[in-house]
Order: sequence, then C-alpha cells, then structure tokens
Amino acid sequence: MTSILHRVVIEASPEKVYSALTEQDSLSAWWTRAKTEAKVDSHVSLFFGAGGEHEVKMKITDLVPNERICWKCIEGPWVNTKAFEFIIQPHERGSDLQFSNLGWSETGEFFMHCNSKWGFFLTVSLKNLLETGKGQPHPNEPNI
Amino acid sequence: MTSILHRVVIEASPEKVYSALTEQDSLSAWWTRAKTEAKVDSHVSLFFGAGGEHEVKMKITDLVPNERICWKCIEGPWVNTKAFEFIIQPHERGSDLQFSNLGWSETGEFFMHCNSKWGFFLTVSLKNLLETGKGQPHPNEPNI
Repeated sequence: MTSILHRVVIEASPEKVYSALTEQDSLSAWWTRAKTEAKVDSHVSLFFGAGGEHEVKMKITDLVPNERICWKCIEGPWVNTKAFEFIIQPHERGSDLQFSNLGWSETGEFFMHCNSKWGFFLTVSLKNLLETGKGQPHPNEPNI
Repeated sequence: MTSILHRVVIEASPEKVYSALTEQDSLSAWWTRAKTEAKVDSHVSLFFGAGGEHEVKMKITDLVPNERICWKCIEGPWVNTKAFEFIIQPHERGSDLQFSNLGWSETGEFFMHCNSKWGFFLTVSLKNLLETGKGQPHPNEPNI
C-alpha cells in the first residue's frame, strides 16, 4: 500500500482554503467542474474529459470547518484507493495544506500520473486561485 | 521505505528531454542553477536559496543516452534517500518521462514538500521549457 502525499503553503486564510475545497464554484475554478452540497454523507461530483463526460463521485465522509475534509471515491478510477484527506493548518504565511490519497495498491503509471496531476493542481491551480484569483482547472491543465 | 514517483508526457523528442536533464544550461533553465559535465562518476552541483548559497551535489551513477539518467545525492538534504532516476521512453506525443527518487524512510512534511515541488518542476517548468522555450526555475517557482 502506498499513498499520494502533497504539502503546499498558500497565502490565504484557513477559512478561504476550506471554502476552495468544499464549495462547488471554487472546486470548479481550480480542479474541474463540480457539483456538491458540502455536507457529510453527501457527494462531490466531478466532471472530467474535454466535454465533462466522465463523472467521478466522492462521498464526503468528514468535514471539520477550516481544518479537515475527507472523501471516499465511490465512482470513478480511484474507487480502489482509500480516503482522500485535506488537512489545513494555520501557517505564518497563511495556510499549510496537506493532502493525502491513501491506499493505492500499486505504484505504476496511473499512480505516477495522478501524483503529478495533484502536484500541478495544488502547487499551481489551487494556490493561484487563492493568491491571485485565477486557477487553471481541467481541461486547461498541462496535458501530461 | 517509500518513493517520490512522477510521470509526465512531454511534446519533445527523447533526445531533447535527455539533453534537458543532463546539460547544465538546460538544468539551470527548469530546475535551478547547475554545474555538470554529464559524465558517469562526475557530479551535478545544484545551487538553491535566493542567492544560490545552498549547494546540493549529485553523483552521476548511470547515463544511457536518450533513455536513462541515474544520480545519487552525496551532499544535501537527500543524502539519506536512494537513487534519483529518470526514464525516457518514446510516446506518440513525444516522450514519456518517469521520475523516481527511491528510498525515503519517512513520509513527513519534507517528503510531501519535495513531492509537490517535483510535481511543479516536471509538469510545468521542464515541460514548458521543452514545449515553449521557457521554464520557471528556482527561485521563481511557487513558494510552497
């Protein structure tokens, strides 16, 4: 078992980082078009593909405002992985965001690809959205 | 033991990707100021910090032109990790680049930070250097 693990310092308050990870308009502005109600046991639907034709569904398993967001993928390519978790902590420059997607059983090409994509979405798209107002969501991310 | 693992498709030939990973001017244009001769048993010196005051030294342990580059960190924060390896394969869009830094004994904040930084340097800086002619090397990468 292995995990995708990232850490990014963002010059924005924990409240703003939490909003960007829970509200559908913000998720759509850094990751991909999203539909969600931001309630535990509710879902986050994410639409991938040039026309948004591939739906991925996360179940929201835990929400601690401004501190923690936890999902489990229930439809899509990550159903065989374990939790997706975002931990937000105050940092002298704003917020320290730690991301994990636990429970990958292999570290082949798809794991490597997803790890690199998360690197882009967190270090560039989410960070820029919060610091400059402009993210670079799917399908406009680098075609890696 | 765990590893940093990335995979990026780059619209450039394996020859050009290999050059960007072995020549000091190219390394300096996507990663950080570098000095190297690109010979096995020789070194790659990399200069980090706002003024390049932190030198990191890699020993070049293997070079297979246009296919494989292998380093071992001998000075700097990664001396306790195992090999750094770049594998380049032809891909229908150019090259498939797989990167690994093996042998991390822990997955704490420094591991997460380095994984995220590699994500940026490979998906954005190296890819853009090869596809558009302009990378975003240290110290101008995102301040994560």
